[in-house]
Amino acid sequence: MSASAPHAAEVQGTEVQGTEVFDAMESAIRTYCRRFPALFTTARGHRLWDADGREYTDFLSGAGVLNYGHNHPRIKRAVLDYIENDGVVHSLDLHTSAKATFLERFRDVVLAPRGLDYRVQFTGPTGTNAVEAALKVARRVTGRTGVVAFTGGFHGLSLGALALSATSFKRAASGVPLDHVTRMPYDGYFGEGVDTVAYLRAMLEDPGSGVDQPAAIVLETVQGEGGLNAAGTDWLRRLARLAAERDIVLVVDDIQAGCGRAGRFFSFEEAGITPDIVCLSKSLSGYGLPMALTLVRPDLDRLGPGEHSGTFRGHSLAFSAAATALELWADPEFEPRLSRTASRLEGRLTALAERYQAQGCEVRGRGMLRGLAFTDRGLASRVSSHAFARGLLVETSGALSQVLKVMPPIVIDDDALDGGLDLLDAAIGQAVQQTVQEETK
Amino acid sequence: MSASAPHAAEVQGTEVQGTEVFDAMESAIRTYCRRFPALFTTARGHRLWDADGREYTDFLSGAGVLNYGHNHPRIKRAVLDYIENDGVVHSLDLHTSAKATFLERFRDVVLAPRGLDYRVQFTGPTGTNAVEAALKVARRVTGRTGVVAFTGGFHGLSLGALALSATSFKRAASGVPLDHVTRMPYDGYFGEGVDTVAYLRAMLEDPGSGVDQPAAIVLETVQGEGGLNAAGTDWLRRLARLAAERDIVLVVDDIQAGCGRAGRFFSFEEAGITPDIVCLSKSLSGYGLPMALTLVRPDLDRLGPGEHSGTFRGHSLAFSAAATALELWADPEFEPRLSRTASRLEGRLTALAERYQAQGCEVRGRGMLRGLAFTDRGLASRVSSHAFARGLLVETSGALSQVLKVMPPIVIDDDALDGGLDLLDAAIGQAVQQTVQEETK
Amino acid sequence: MSASAPHAAEVQGTEVQGTEVFDAMESAIRTYCRRFPALFTTARGHRLWDADGREYTDFLSGAGVLNYGHNHPRIKRAVLDYIENDGVVHSLDLHTSAKATFLERFRDVVLAPRGLDYRVQFTGPTGTNAVEAALKVARRVTGRTGVVAFTGGFHGLSLGALALSATSFKRAASGVPLDHVTRMPYDGYFGEGVDTVAYLRAMLEDPGSGVDQPAAIVLETVQGEGGLNAAGTDWLRRLARLAAERDIVLVVDDIQAGCGRAGRFFSFEEAGITPDIVCLSKSLSGYGLPMALTLVRPDLDRLGPGEHSGTFRGHSLAFSAAATALELWADPEFEPRLSRTASRLEGRLTALAERYQAQGCEVRGRGMLRGLAFTDRGLASRVSSHAFARGLLVETSGALSQVLKVMPPIVIDDDALDGGLDLLDAAIGQAVQQTVQEETK
Amino acid sequence: MSASAPHAAEVQGTEVQGTEVFDAMESAIRTYCRRFPALFTTARGHRLWDADGREYTDFLSGAGVLNYGHNHPRIKRAVLDYIENDGVVHSLDLHTSAKATFLERFRDVVLAPRGLDYRVQFTGPTGTNAVEAALKVARRVTGRTGVVAFTGGFHGLSLGALALSATSFKRAASGVPLDHVTRMPYDGYFGEGVDTVAYLRAMLEDPGSGVDQPAAIVLETVQGEGGLNAAGTDWLRRLARLAAERDIVLVVDDIQAGCGRAGRFFSFEEAGITPDIVCLSKSLSGYGLPMALTLVRPDLDRLGPGEHSGTFRGHSLAFSAAATALELWADPEFEPRLSRTASRLEGRLTALAERYQAQGCEVRGRGMLRGLAFTDRGLASRVSSHAFARGLLVETSGALSQVLKVMPPIVIDDDALDGGLDLLDAAIGQAVQQTVQEETK
Repeated sequence: MSASAPHAAEVQGTEVQGTEVFDAMESAIRTYCRRFPALFTTARGHRLWDADGREYTDFLSGAGVLNYGHNHPRIKRAVLDYIENDGVVHSLDLHTSAKATFLERFRDVVLAPRGLDYRVQFTGPTGTNAVEAALKVARRVTGRTGVVAFTGGFHGLSLGALALSATSFKRAASGVPLDHVTRMPYDGYFGEGVDTVAYLRAMLEDPGSGVDQPAAIVLETVQGEGGLNAAGTDWLRRLARLAAERDIVLVVDDIQAGCGRAGRFFSFEEAGITPDIVCLSKSLSGYGLPMALTLVRPDLDRLGPGEHSGTFRGHSLAFSAAATALELWADPEFEPRLSRTASRLEGRLTALAERYQAQGCEVRGRGMLRGLAFTDRGLASRVSSHAFARGLLVETSGALSQVLKVMPPIVIDDDALDGGLDLLDAAIGQAVQQTVQEETK
Repeated sequence: MSASAPHAAEVQGTEVQGTEVFDAMESAIRTYCRRFPALFTTARGHRLWDADGREYTDFLSGAGVLNYGHNHPRIKRAVLDYIENDGVVHSLDLHTSAKATFLERFRDVVLAPRGLDYRVQFTGPTGTNAVEAALKVARRVTGRTGVVAFTGGFHGLSLGALALSATSFKRAASGVPLDHVTRMPYDGYFGEGVDTVAYLRAMLEDPGSGVDQPAAIVLETVQGEGGLNAAGTDWLRRLARLAAERDIVLVVDDIQAGCGRAGRFFSFEEAGITPDIVCLSKSLSGYGLPMALTLVRPDLDRLGPGEHSGTFRGHSLAFSAAATALELWADPEFEPRLSRTASRLEGRLTALAERYQAQGCEVRGRGMLRGLAFTDRGLASRVSSHAFARGLLVETSGALSQVLKVMPPIVIDDDALDGGLDLLDAAIGQAVQQTVQEETK
Repeated sequence: MSASAPHAAEVQGTEVQGTEVFDAMESAIRTYCRRFPALFTTARGHRLWDADGREYTDFLSGAGVLNYGHNHPRIKRAVLDYIENDGVVHSLDLHTSAKATFLERFRDVVLAPRGLDYRVQFTGPTGTNAVEAALKVARRVTGRTGVVAFTGGFHGLSLGALALSATSFKRAASGVPLDHVTRMPYDGYFGEGVDTVAYLRAMLEDPGSGVDQPAAIVLETVQGEGGLNAAGTDWLRRLARLAAERDIVLVVDDIQAGCGRAGRFFSFEEAGITPDIVCLSKSLSGYGLPMALTLVRPDLDRLGPGEHSGTFRGHSLAFSAAATALELWADPEFEPRLSRTASRLEGRLTALAERYQAQGCEVRGRGMLRGLAFTDRGLASRVSSHAFARGLLVETSGALSQVLKVMPPIVIDDDALDGGLDLLDAAIGQAVQQTVQEETK
Repeated sequence: MSASAPHAAEVQGTEVQGTEVFDAMESAIRTYCRRFPALFTTARGHRLWDADGREYTDFLSGAGVLNYGHNHPRIKRAVLDYIENDGVVHSLDLHTSAKATFLERFRDVVLAPRGLDYRVQFTGPTGTNAVEAALKVARRVTGRTGVVAFTGGFHGLSLGALALSATSFKRAASGVPLDHVTRMPYDGYFGEGVDTVAYLRAMLEDPGSGVDQPAAIVLETVQGEGGLNAAGTDWLRRLARLAAERDIVLVVDDIQAGCGRAGRFFSFEEAGITPDIVCLSKSLSGYGLPMALTLVRPDLDRLGPGEHSGTFRGHSLAFSAAATALELWADPEFEPRLSRTASRLEGRLTALAERYQAQGCEVRGRGMLRGLAFTDRGLASRVSSHAFARGLLVETSGALSQVLKVMPPIVIDDDALDGGLDLLDAAIGQAVQQTVQEETK
């Protein structure tokens, strides 16, 4: 990728605006722009530029949308061609050539090599729509209403998905009781000694527990919003076994951890489990274009024509981009390279954790979906601020923003990765020093 | 717009696929493609082409997404430029120049000239997300949970929005009871003599009615999915007055009827009411790119940073397209032309209704959001099939698909409109004849 | 009945206490004692005496519990014998001779002569328990969750029954949204011209109405708490037909209107309908002893052993009293006498209504379950106060206490009835005069 | 108490009926009578007699209603006097001398000596009504909706209380999702090593747990229906502390374990905690007459007049009996004698558990609320059948009826206790032998 910044002025009109219009017109609900108050204009790969021409290294990756970086040149070319040739952009669920190509590519590159067989349900192009669809399928198939979800889970903010999500302040925004969900402790929630699948099993097997048989168990294998907790492979396997034994639909929400983010295309591959339903979105199109899928085991595909829909489920421009993004995975070097990058990231983070041992620094997560936790729950936020001042975008995770979330593009090269991590290192150092100074005052 | 078909082969790879891959891989839930089983490849304006080069006139308009037709050249140019210049495509809720431009344009072209003042909440880019956001705001502001929705209403399929939606088979797909909604009869539900606002008022004013004070009243001014019922201006005004008197948040879901579809930018302009909250989506971007907004009266903008969010709420490519689409409205000739087109459509439909008086044909709807209802509830579906065979895409509406939904692009020229309506006329004639023949067998 | 007051001092200890202990120890939730702040000690027939020996005529009848008056001598004798002989008082759902006798008597005196066939479910001995049981049966039988209830309805205050009840301030006490109920207008809610069964039918027959098919329709034929509204026989018949056509369980809550209160043993006899489920309580035991039943059509009796229960469902002392109370009905003169008393009451009330025509006085209700409504919504409360001062207990009904509720024992003799009504007449006159004086100030 | 059986024929008419009428007329839902299919006629103390004059020792105690045995002579005398003197039997919430006497006695005998201060809310006279009232108070006071309840808990079967109850088959009877409850593991649910209060604390303190702050924590200190699990005093204290720290209303449902059943008047006295709300019912009247109370900390008594009610909340005959029953507690010898009886029971059960060590026999519960669990989950039911054949009524507890529930009157004398336990011992022996025989076949 070229290092020269595109001319901001070329993008979207001639004037470079300030940010006053946001304060004047946008809802108070906006949040990222408060932490990173630049006016961004252009982007390539792991880099963003603002209206003043300042360059930023992006370790946000659009909360998981930009696994292949911004404006990946190969996908860009495909998108431009598609538009120039007047491809169908929006098509409800009509057959389009873009959708056909995507489906074939998804079958050939993703499903078949992994021995997976799913029906593809195109849902409204946001993660929460894919989760709502999964819940409908699971409830239809089982005739039950309840769902098991986990501490720290995040699955979206429309009412059905929000009931599954664990963050209290987002739950409170619903203004209604959030029903039909039994909350269970995620792997490791009570420390290493406590087997939380055994706990769930006990609750489900005891007719006097008060926990009704659920339609589904819904989980992320790595909790991207809940603090980068990663479930162990053994825990995942035992959970999958429990679900299978009790005819409970196992739903893996792979919206953030999938599409390579956790190291493989699907985050559950490492554990060798096969969920009944998988939700995908975020990096599916590979270009930031909204797209979402719910993958359903063929025998569970029991919703009839039109029972669930969504206007933008036929966003064919995204299908065209996604088909091209999957070509990247067809390259036999892609996964090994991703694996090496993930190892490099883990190595560097581990070194950082050792350096900041006094701050209780711990590495969290898996693959390219990583976190750094500190004893001082406010430290991560301070690091994020210092990093921004240094030109690095890195966000926090967890209900108290207590974990630094490190999420570079999965295709980042070693130099760029190291450069970003150097900035991160410096930001941590600065935040720690600041904390020490404040405490000694 | 050019009449020559783009070369399908140029779009998305070289091979032209068949439709087998959809049957093999896609979920049974797909629906439009069953009624219109072509493989579409390219589109311009009111025209679509399939893989065999066959041309179709599009009176579907992507269920309201394509008010400006497919791939409008001016928006196309803006989108291509934006991509070519590496504009930010996806940005969460960071400030981007594309968003700033959109906000300014929206203020200058839409809000200011109409004397409206709203805070703009960018939600996940689907209509249902915008509705879920509206519900959260209304519940927060009032501290109440219930919502009044209407017979025939459609507001989306995620759990919160689905509870508002009236179609029984879509409701049944939820698999859980749909709570917190009081269903009220829409304007005209019991015939002309019955004033259904008076009914609602009685229920709300009587402390012994059993209807709790609601947080919000949510409605469409024209019911696009519920059978093209249009509320009268007087009914809308009295409803708005009732909501104001009782401190109930009035939410107009303008996802389908807005962006010019009902004749003005907002569908409620004609009635002269000012809703507390307005939901927009579908044709916002003008190019089929997913985008949605919730407009909130400034003093009701009481959700805090991050209380509601959505990964793709920062779909800046759509903002770029939307800013360009709004330029169309800045042309002083745009609205008068739209008004003339709507009159022409109404005139032709009225003539059709007279021709098929024996079939009880009635014109429904308002502006460019029109329907034809028949006494025989199955007739609309048959007309749709015959129209497809003749190269016209026209869908049905209503829980029983009992109304033909006539929705050309709002920028369609007279010749194209007439051409499509001629096809429709022929299709109706054929369907009527077929019915007569079957009945006389 | 003897007119001499029993010696208060003989009852419950020797001292006659004041009412300070109630203020000091009882919850603020108490209500009747605020309107009628005497300390009652003894009672017989239609009379109560307080600790000062003052006599009151009782037109409250314990909110419908005391249809046969206080301490009916025949039932009193049976209860005393039962206790003296160490009959089983409490027995869960064990077989007891008292229950056997009650069942036989209920069959012979109530069911068989009316051609009714029901299974008797003994529930916890309060009306709300009987209604909760009815809901469970209806939901089990239909597999549906929703229930249709009416404006002005009252069915109890436990969560399931409360959701059916219409009074807003009682609903608000639940602290949770009250779900699974569709509220419909009762007969006459919109005036004489509007057929509210037609409205309900339209909603249930239209798959696009947004009203899901309910498990049950639950109603009172006369709304004792909701303002003494009486449903017409034609309305009841059409409602029953609608329920039958759509396989909806028709539940008549006859807790207040049953046991003779509305003129026959069951309040629905006049209309000639046969509900699928009937709830009875209040005057069942005839002696103020808690007891409740849910009568279920035999083929709908599908809850299994123990699926619903209640500790005091085996209150055999009440069964013993109830069996004796039913003996009263076995007397062939009982019903004709009741009919004459009801006519006398209606005649006197109609005369009162004419006298207070200027106050918009209207007679409400049916049989011995009567009300007087006035244009001035506060008048009924003032009448009740004046009546108390004159030694008559008469309460109000309706969410705004806007209706005077006139409910003497159904076995009251003509002299006592006239005496009470004379007091009532005087109290109304006084309240009207007071109002006039206040207005002219 | 006299050992001579009362003459059955004297009770309730002259004929002694068979049990056919129950099969013909009563709902299939009845349950105890299936296990103990006698026709009971009379009862005294710990004894019941059937229509054939057969005598039974009662270790059921009416599921906790008959703590003072059947027809206690002192209470019987008071009840007879009350009725003979025409005391008010039913009074809504009017002031009656019977209620005043009860309140004073309750204050003097129960509250004051224990340093407790509660407002007394008279609710509908069943336990489930008292629990529904407690939920309303807790929700009103906190403005929250959720409630924490425990594995194995039982709190009643009306919809609000049922949501708290843990038995799956009783839950399923509701036919609707049971909302607003977070289920937590009771003391010991995961074995001795796991501190389940720490688990609850973690969930409540973590804003990312997904468990919303509850209005109340509702629990029994001994689970009478859930298998006789007894919470430890330390666990109870830590739970109370957690509730206090987080402003959660602590509700002890003492309906079964209170009134002396667990060894003291309130079951929580031993732990030295003071709940915010206490529910009482069952043995309150001491005579099997329905009665229930919700005791509310004075500053939490925030429901207004009439916000919760219940027709039979003014069952003054029960108040009269209850006032007399409390006189028993005024005797300084009463509690020490109860304590000795409980010790004797524990000693004998412990000996039994040792004898049937091979069957994994374990003693459960506390005070006079005891259970025997066995490894073989079906054994308890078989013991119950054999016991019945020998003239001992002893029921089972737990969702699988897996625990034998041993609950003699708390006033039973040593000889009678020993006699009943001898029968129990023999029944266990027989059941064990039968099991051995069946297994060796």
